[in-house]
Amino acid sequence: MNGTMKAIVKHHHGSGAELREVSIPSIQEGEVLIRVKATSICGTDVHIYNWDEWSASRVNPPYVFGHEFAGEIVEIGSKVNNFSIGDYVSAETHLVCGHCPQCLTGQSHICENTQIIGVDTQGCFAEYVALPASNLWRNPEGLPTDIASIQEPMGNAVHTVLSGDVAGKTVAIIGCGPIGLMAVGVAKAAGASQVLAFDLNAYRLELAKEMGATATINSGESDPVKEAKERTNQHGVDVVCEMSGHPVAMDQGFKMITNGGRVSILSLPTTPVTLDITNDVVFKGVHVEGITGRKMYETWQQVSRLLDSGQVDVKPILTHHFDLEEFEKGFQLMNDGKCGKVVLHP
Amino acid sequence: MNGTMKAIVKHHHGSGAELREVSIPSIQEGEVLIRVKATSICGTDVHIYNWDEWSASRVNPPYVFGHEFAGEIVEIGSKVNNFSIGDYVSAETHLVCGHCPQCLTGQSHICENTQIIGVDTQGCFAEYVALPASNLWRNPEGLPTDIASIQEPMGNAVHTVLSGDVAGKTVAIIGCGPIGLMAVGVAKAAGASQVLAFDLNAYRLELAKEMGATATINSGESDPVKEAKERTNQHGVDVVCEMSGHPVAMDQGFKMITNGGRVSILSLPTTPVTLDITNDVVFKGVHVEGITGRKMYETWQQVSRLLDSGQVDVKPILTHHFDLEEFEKGFQLMNDGKCGKVVLHP
Amino acid sequence: MNGTMKAIVKHHHGSGAELREVSIPSIQEGEVLIRVKATSICGTDVHIYNWDEWSASRVNPPYVFGHEFAGEIVEIGSKVNNFSIGDYVSAETHLVCGHCPQCLTGQSHICENTQIIGVDTQGCFAEYVALPASNLWRNPEGLPTDIASIQEPMGNAVHTVLSGDVAGKTVAIIGCGPIGLMAVGVAKAAGASQVLAFDLNAYRLELAKEMGATATINSGESDPVKEAKERTNQHGVDVVCEMSGHPVAMDQGFKMITNGGRVSILSLPTTPVTLDITNDVVFKGVHVEGITGRKMYETWQQVSRLLDSGQVDVKPILTHHFDLEEFEKGFQLMNDGKCGKVVLHP
Amino acid sequence: MNGTMKAIVKHHHGSGAELREVSIPSIQEGEVLIRVKATSICGTDVHIYNWDEWSASRVNPPYVFGHEFAGEIVEIGSKVNNFSIGDYVSAETHLVCGHCPQCLTGQSHICENTQIIGVDTQGCFAEYVALPASNLWRNPEGLPTDIASIQEPMGNAVHTVLSGDVAGKTVAIIGCGPIGLMAVGVAKAAGASQVLAFDLNAYRLELAKEMGATATINSGESDPVKEAKERTNQHGVDVVCEMSGHPVAMDQGFKMITNGGRVSILSLPTTPVTLDITNDVVFKGVHVEGITGRKMYETWQQVSRLLDSGQVDVKPILTHHFDLEEFEKGFQLMNDGKCGKVVLHP
Repeated sequence: MNGTMKAIVKHHHGSGAELREVSIPSIQEGEVLIRVKATSICGTDVHIYNWDEWSASRVNPPYVFGHEFAGEIVEIGSKVNNFSIGDYVSAETHLVCGHCPQCLTGQSHICENTQIIGVDTQGCFAEYVALPASNLWRNPEGLPTDIASIQEPMGNAVHTVLSGDVAGKTVAIIGCGPIGLMAVGVAKAAGASQVLAFDLNAYRLELAKEMGATATINSGESDPVKEAKERTNQHGVDVVCEMSGHPVAMDQGFKMITNGGRVSILSLPTTPVTLDITNDVVFKGVHVEGITGRKMYETWQQVSRLLDSGQVDVKPILTHHFDLEEFEKGFQLMNDGKCGKVVLHP
Repeated sequence: MNGTMKAIVKHHHGSGAELREVSIPSIQEGEVLIRVKATSICGTDVHIYNWDEWSASRVNPPYVFGHEFAGEIVEIGSKVNNFSIGDYVSAETHLVCGHCPQCLTGQSHICENTQIIGVDTQGCFAEYVALPASNLWRNPEGLPTDIASIQEPMGNAVHTVLSGDVAGKTVAIIGCGPIGLMAVGVAKAAGASQVLAFDLNAYRLELAKEMGATATINSGESDPVKEAKERTNQHGVDVVCEMSGHPVAMDQGFKMITNGGRVSILSLPTTPVTLDITNDVVFKGVHVEGITGRKMYETWQQVSRLLDSGQVDVKPILTHHFDLEEFEKGFQLMNDGKCGKVVLHP
Repeated sequence: MNGTMKAIVKHHHGSGAELREVSIPSIQEGEVLIRVKATSICGTDVHIYNWDEWSASRVNPPYVFGHEFAGEIVEIGSKVNNFSIGDYVSAETHLVCGHCPQCLTGQSHICENTQIIGVDTQGCFAEYVALPASNLWRNPEGLPTDIASIQEPMGNAVHTVLSGDVAGKTVAIIGCGPIGLMAVGVAKAAGASQVLAFDLNAYRLELAKEMGATATINSGESDPVKEAKERTNQHGVDVVCEMSGHPVAMDQGFKMITNGGRVSILSLPTTPVTLDITNDVVFKGVHVEGITGRKMYETWQQVSRLLDSGQVDVKPILTHHFDLEEFEKGFQLMNDGKCGKVVLHP
Repeated sequence: MNGTMKAIVKHHHGSGAELREVSIPSIQEGEVLIRVKATSICGTDVHIYNWDEWSASRVNPPYVFGHEFAGEIVEIGSKVNNFSIGDYVSAETHLVCGHCPQCLTGQSHICENTQIIGVDTQGCFAEYVALPASNLWRNPEGLPTDIASIQEPMGNAVHTVLSGDVAGKTVAIIGCGPIGLMAVGVAKAAGASQVLAFDLNAYRLELAKEMGATATINSGESDPVKEAKERTNQHGVDVVCEMSGHPVAMDQGFKMITNGGRVSILSLPTTPVTLDITNDVVFKGVHVEGITGRKMYETWQQVSRLLDSGQVDVKPILTHHFDLEEFEKGFQLMNDGKCGKVVLHP
């Protein structure tokens, strides 16, 4: 497809981004062109927008960023044979190599050669995006585009919560950013008997309650470990989902876990973390799961079905909608922590 | 405790039972005496009441039968140190040996030397029952006695449904007797995206709908395999819980399962079952789980928490309540299939 | 590559096959041409050679059959970027679709649209074979070609034996054809405390002993269930690998399994099988695994490493070697059951 | 049994111990008296002997210490009904409560109220020891007493190594004290394709080689992470068993693990450990298992069978044998790191 489109371009090595008119991308063999209907802002996008140390070392401006979206296929490259024009799709963000030991053993989500859409390649904060068909996920017809757009981060939540048993268990969600909030909903939908939500931000704790948390604890106002123990007859919680990235909160997670419990860590602390391995991991017989990405595509199947069946209702999290042009409002809200998920509509 | 009590006695080698006044049982070291508040009728009790081939070969009249209950401890034997008078309890029905290979490896629910309360020993269709403290389960305070009474059969449902993953999966419940109906609720609570309920009995299919089935199929009126495939894009269901005991229905379960799916069998067909192992098990890479009893006491923890948290609401299944004296009405309803769970109140 | 090559052609709808001079296959995008160094005869090939009911309904003569091999890449198609000329490879036999629910959830070995090399496509009983690069497995340099050739059936053995825990367990291998013999070696290498091998054929039982069986039982001469129980203090074996395909032997497997044990079925009985589900599956709490193909490519990694490390020594099974031209001798031995694995050298 | 016996008594709050003549212990209901045939020295015993900070805070001299042994039952208390005089036994060291959530859910090895034989109660460095029958493990008749004595620490090795899959995997054992050495043997027996043993002590690395290590690396002489990567095509090892307790070595374990690998930690570092959670746990999708004790009694079954079948031969580790009276020689060797396992014979 010839012509130009509007796109949010990370234009320089510094903070901010610009709305620009750029060429509609052309597609290669095995790729499709998608008309973006909704695209949502991830914490990673905020890092790139703010231009922190990590993004300075990783991304190459100028380029279009963004990686969460839902849209419709408008053009099909050669050798694409199980998608058609008009199909309603979202996409897995990890571009994987297919031949490392992890890819060869059903673990492509931790491919040694992973590239990330919108980080290492052109992204979807635009009217169109070109992507390999092998990364597409077909959406159920009735799923609203804003909900379909957040399946990628919800995949992180699902991957974390469901990395072990949940039904009839007590679950702590530490950190109630958008993915933590989705994790609350997933834990509830998967049969948790209690879902304890921890954060410092009252606004987000309120959203956690809407998502089904059985208790919300402001970690700045009361002792998270004490609160968790009091709600579990002093035994501690069965499952901790660490989504805060704060070393102190992570340590609290290991202190509130029961003997034999599971700590699944999705967050990315920016400094090394000091843990009492002897008392909090070994003597307790704790299971720790490092979680990255989404199982390809087992997690996508779970996400799609949990949303489409209504088992998880993410509408309380979709707090803000803007036109693509208004992206700066969205990034401002994200930086202020005054939002759930922000969706842009090109 | 001296004195007599009312009890339903399987009095002879033949059909029926009698309400009799018998001695209150005395307790041994390690046992407690429980005042029964609610006791519910199991399919096994109906077999004993009707005096079928199995019961004729297994039980020894006269004796008090019944094994599902909730009650309060009124007397404590010596060497019982973690229960007190006044405690609100139910009990696991399997009396296990503790030293066979299964008991020694965390699988006492399939102990080689299992005896069953109310089958091989005196049961709980009475005002009082004496039981070993090691088989007791402490109930949450607020749990109603009729709900607490049905934890044992609900444990069968939980053990069956949760013998593999459920969240985001499509689940078929074949056979909607009381345990099948509970299984519907458990599957829904554990995050199933679809719960298809199959039975021949319209009354029970109606209850299945109340328990959360996303579709109910009368297997006598339409082809169960076709119905299951139509609701799953022809791929078949992810999980089959077989609770009918009918060889034909069981075979249908193996025909409707998707490649790589799980068939968990709780039912006890009275005749051998013929299966197409090559096409329905091997080529499909199917996992089959034989389910008996409840994991001791992992399943009880799950049951107790799913009920106490409100994740599963079993009230629609508790269709009939009678005084202990009216037990014959209950057995009549069970024989007619015109009930969910029947609870007797001594 | 132009020119002709020798190949074993299933030439007509009837028994037998012919050695013919045919064109060397040309390769497509994404494919490679391989010079076959060793190719081994599978039971499936024997069915095709003998022209049984299954093969009459499935294969389309004339075509080159055969699917087990090891060889060297001699030509590379476009878009093949992680293999080079000279690479030493074998290949997974299942050609999978990549977009069915199974392929999308890490279970491509049970792809709904599986095609099989040498059954549905041209095979490797020839000097050259053309195959998609995505199906290749890179062999360790020092691995002899005859051993590398049998990785595909050994994958079946590994997939079956390792579909659950083995270390410190008692394992029964029912059926000691080539895959059963490999399963004996795999169970031993994976730490089984006992490996009981069952067959009717004394020649194969002798090979089972060479592969490490701790006991061999001729099922025609003594009662397999009694023998298994006697060697396990009457508790039964922990794991049964069913590789005979005989309904009677399969039923014996379910009778000799201990409570909570695992029955993994790789065999393909040609008639329906009647089982005592109540007593042999449900009351025992047995796990049954239907096994087909090899996990792609987790099983290949296991096979390759077990062979390369010397943990499994398959040399006793490689009983016969022939030139490609002598293929009829190989099929004769297979039909007579007087061999382990027969390897052809083009 | 009346009379006195020789015993090694931790006699005061300070270093050392004394051989004393003390009363033969009397047995309670549910207990048995065992004549100790062989008893081995554990690292924990060395801590108590040396009187470090931990032992000063935990144990109460004077008392008999020691907890690893094999012996023969010579007296039976009331209510013991599945052991007899003359039975050949060893014992699990953890005395568990039976009613905490862990005990009730098949995880009694992490009982919240664990007491330890020889630490919190009278031990087995003596001619006789009195123990509850519920903690006994029946030994196979032919198993030598010195081998039977070390089943308890070998249980730690088995629990650690087999806390995930091993067959066909590359395994690193970090720390080659006696349990690390047994772990080498267990990994080999369970089908590991490579077993890399790491230590600073050349004597112990030599023993590791005898136990089947495919490579031994002196961590003081070359870079352990580099060595591990070189042996795994730069991908890293699949499994790390951390048995050193050194924070630096533990961190190396997390650096040498492959994406998706498993780190099982048995060691007890005496200081907090600082880890790069983001890069070494989360991005890699690593599984971490805290390991304590032995699964009761699943691990004992595995240990007993691996030893009795000859799958693991621990004789190279049994480097020193002394009479009970010569215990000080044993403690000296342990302090010098110049031994495998030291066995005392009362």
